[in-house]
Amino acid sequence: MNHETFMKLAIEEAHKAGAIAEVPIGAVVVHHGEVIGRGHNLRETGQNPTYHAEMMAINEASAHLGSWRLEECVLYATLEPCVMCSGAIVMSRIPVVIYGAHDPKGGCSGSLMNLLNEPRFNHRATVISGICHDECSMLLTTFFRELRQKKLLEKKRGNELI
Amino acid sequence: MNHETFMKLAIEEAHKAGAIAEVPIGAVVVHHGEVIGRGHNLRETGQNPTYHAEMMAINEASAHLGSWRLEECVLYATLEPCVMCSGAIVMSRIPVVIYGAHDPKGGCSGSLMNLLNEPRFNHRATVISGICHDECSMLLTTFFRELRQKKLLEKKRGNELI
Repeated sequence: MNHETFMKLAIEEAHKAGAIAEVPIGAVVVHHGEVIGRGHNLRETGQNPTYHAEMMAINEASAHLGSWRLEECVLYATLEPCVMCSGAIVMSRIPVVIYGAHDPKGGCSGSLMNLLNEPRFNHRATVISGICHDECSMLLTTFFRELRQKKLLEKKRGNELI
Repeated sequence: MNHETFMKLAIEEAHKAGAIAEVPIGAVVVHHGEVIGRGHNLRETGQNPTYHAEMMAINEASAHLGSWRLEECVLYATLEPCVMCSGAIVMSRIPVVIYGAHDPKGGCSGSLMNLLNEPRFNHRATVISGICHDECSMLLTTFFRELRQKKLLEKKRGNELI
């Protein structure tokens, strides 16, 4: 299986988040070609700041392997990991991270900074970006456009009631 | 209650970790003077890279408030937060972080970098360090000294058996 095949599984996860009005972000952790962790953003549903897609996938992968060390794993994420998720990648020693869309506002795996290539940490990861970029990016663009339209409609309806 | 009083509760948590052979690090989250989250390092016990003291305390605090936004909370930690925990503080929007011992090798709330005062993130936190510094620091020094002694003794016993 190639990178696109695994990224499609992360995109499947992102759709699960979108279906319940969460920002559509998904991730999978792959160990020797086998998917051992899946996750999608559940921050609002769970009302928990740590329920990002990557964290959910890392939690599941650790439980599967019975180890906090994910040293032979690859993480696929539809969006560039944030500061917390980049930190969790360092902590779990994942050696390869592959993401779809860049996050110029909050991405810490290359955009704002690259915490996965910080010589002062005891772990560094190889980062490959842009896999299924357009699809990953479109997921978010569509979600936020629909959200804005919904809010505008609600505002309009609110004004009509006054 | 003052900072020392809450830090003592974080130290209590650190002792719980030490008692089960985990690196003794503890944390509490305080909301308007009430402790709503407690946590200690459980990385080895849980075999999960995210089971740091601060993460456990943040998870408990979010569950208590039913919200991922910990905007009126203070986090106390015996050791300077790592890259992941500093990230979780940013994600949970905790405005004040108070820690005991500095971590020159992995601390990301002032030592290696300060992720809690990064102008490009949408959240920044005030950091106060050095509260109960000696006690927090001694916890770790003692733990690692005893670990080294134990390993030396095991090595010596191993050599005697050869």
